[in-house]
Amino acid sequence: MNRIDLFKKIQDKKSFLCVGLDTDPSKIPSHLLKTTDPVFEFNKEIIDQTAEFAVAYKPNIAFYEALGPKGWESLQKTLDYIPKEIFTIADAKRGDIGNTSGLYAKAFFETMDFDSITVAPYMGVDSVKPFLEFENKWVILLALTSNEGSADFQLISSQSGKPLFQEVLEKSSKWGNPDNMMYVVGATRGEKIAEVRKIVPEHFFLVPGVGAQGGSLEDVAHFGMNSHCGLLVNSSRGIIYAGNDKDFAKLAGLEAKKLQLEMEKLLSKYL
Amino acid sequence: MNRIDLFKKIQDKKSFLCVGLDTDPSKIPSHLLKTTDPVFEFNKEIIDQTAEFAVAYKPNIAFYEALGPKGWESLQKTLDYIPKEIFTIADAKRGDIGNTSGLYAKAFFETMDFDSITVAPYMGVDSVKPFLEFENKWVILLALTSNEGSADFQLISSQSGKPLFQEVLEKSSKWGNPDNMMYVVGATRGEKIAEVRKIVPEHFFLVPGVGAQGGSLEDVAHFGMNSHCGLLVNSSRGIIYAGNDKDFAKLAGLEAKKLQLEMEKLLSKYL
Repeated sequence: MNRIDLFKKIQDKKSFLCVGLDTDPSKIPSHLLKTTDPVFEFNKEIIDQTAEFAVAYKPNIAFYEALGPKGWESLQKTLDYIPKEIFTIADAKRGDIGNTSGLYAKAFFETMDFDSITVAPYMGVDSVKPFLEFENKWVILLALTSNEGSADFQLISSQSGKPLFQEVLEKSSKWGNPDNMMYVVGATRGEKIAEVRKIVPEHFFLVPGVGAQGGSLEDVAHFGMNSHCGLLVNSSRGIIYAGNDKDFAKLAGLEAKKLQLEMEKLLSKYL
Repeated sequence: MNRIDLFKKIQDKKSFLCVGLDTDPSKIPSHLLKTTDPVFEFNKEIIDQTAEFAVAYKPNIAFYEALGPKGWESLQKTLDYIPKEIFTIADAKRGDIGNTSGLYAKAFFETMDFDSITVAPYMGVDSVKPFLEFENKWVILLALTSNEGSADFQLISSQSGKPLFQEVLEKSSKWGNPDNMMYVVGATRGEKIAEVRKIVPEHFFLVPGVGAQGGSLEDVAHFGMNSHCGLLVNSSRGIIYAGNDKDFAKLAGLEAKKLQLEMEKLLSKYL
C-alpha cells in the first residue's frame, strides 16, 4: 500500500486508528480456550468487530514468538484474515547487519506478507536499507519512543546540540523517503511530537502510547498532523481487552468506534 | 551457565570459539536437501564436527525466522541437539518496551532454552531489564558493532565528549553485572576493543567480524582479553561453509580446529 492509498483510506474511514493485536493467551476469554487456535479465534473476532473503524492492524510479534512455532501459525492466519485494504504492521523492532536484515525483511515481507515492519536504528544504514529494497513495503523506524528508557539514549545531546533521536531522523530520512519510511514517535509529550514533525514534515508517524501509556489524542493531532494526516495512532490493550467475556469483541468494537469518532473530529479540525 | 563455568570451559577446551549457525537453505549441500529437515541435518553434522573445538553456538535467528514456522522447528531441534555443556546464544537483536521485552525473554529463555540473547539498546533500561530477570541467563547487548552503519549513531559524540557506545556501556553496565551481561564488540578495529575493555574490564565480549568481516584474532586477544578470557569470538561463514559437498562438515571441523589452535596460543600468550 502506498502513501496516497493510505491517506485515501484515512479519509474514507475518517479514522487514523491502528489496532494493536498484542494477544496474550492469559487474557483470552475462557470460552475461546477450547478452540484449536485460541489466539487466532480471538484475533478473528476482534478484527470482525474493529475493521470498520481501523486503517491499520499491528500484531506485536513478541506475543506470537513467545508461543513457539504455533504462535507463528496463529500470526500467519491472523495476517491472512485481515482485510486486504487495511495496512498491516509487524511490530518486530528488528535490525542487524545487511545480509541478516535482508532475511528479516524476507521473513516479514515474503514468507509473510506484511505491509511494514518496525525497525531499530542502532546499527545504522546497512541494517535499515535491506528493508527498503522491497517495493510497496515500509520501514517504520524507532525515533522517539514513549517508554521510561527512551531517555537513556534517545535524548542524549550530541556535540552539535542535537538529541540522538534527531540524528536518527535526519540521517535515516535520507536512506528512504516519505513513501517507504515512517517513524515511531511516542505520544507522551506533545511538544516532542512537534519537534519531530518539524524535522520530518512529510513522513507518517506510528504513535503508540495513547491510552494505556498516557498520551492525549488531541495533542497528537494538534502537534503531529500534516496535510496527508501523517498519523497512525495505535491502541492495543484499551481496545482488545475492553471486555473479557463472550461479548469481548463487541466491547472492543465499541472502544474502536469511540476512538474513530474522536479521530473524525480531529481530522476535520486539523486537516 | 555462569561466568565461572564458562571460563572453566574455555580453559578445558583451550578455545573461546563461538560457531555461528547462520544456516542458509541455498547453501546447504544438495545431498541434504532430500531429508525432511535439511536445516537441522546441516546443523547436526556441523555440531558433530565442531563441538570439540567450540565453547558456544550462535544461531542467527533471522535465518530461521525467514523460513516461517518450519524454521522455528529446525531451530528448536538444533538447540536441543547442542551438547548441554556448550553455551548457546540466540542472535536475535530484540528489544522493546518492558512487557514486550519480557515476552521476547520468555520466547528465548523459556519456550526455547537459550543461555543468552543479543539485545539492541536503543529503547533503554526497561527494554533490557526484563531479560535480566531470568536466573542463569545472559543479555548480550549491542555496544559497538562491526558493520558499515555502526558509525552512523554508535560513534556520535555526546556533549560530554563520549561516543554513544560509551554511554551505552556505562549506563547499561549498572543494569546488570558481568555475570549476566556481555557486550557485542566488533573486531574490525583493535584500538576500539581496547577502548571498550577500559570501560567494562570484567564483562565478556561477543566478537563478530573475525574472518569474513575482516578483523584479526591476534588484535582481539591482545586488546580484549581479561583475566577470565572475557572473549567469545564468533565465526560463521568461514566455518559452516568451508565446503559444500558431502565432506562439508568435516571441512567445517578442520576450520574450527584451526581457529581453536590459534586461540590456544593466544590464551597462553595473554592469559
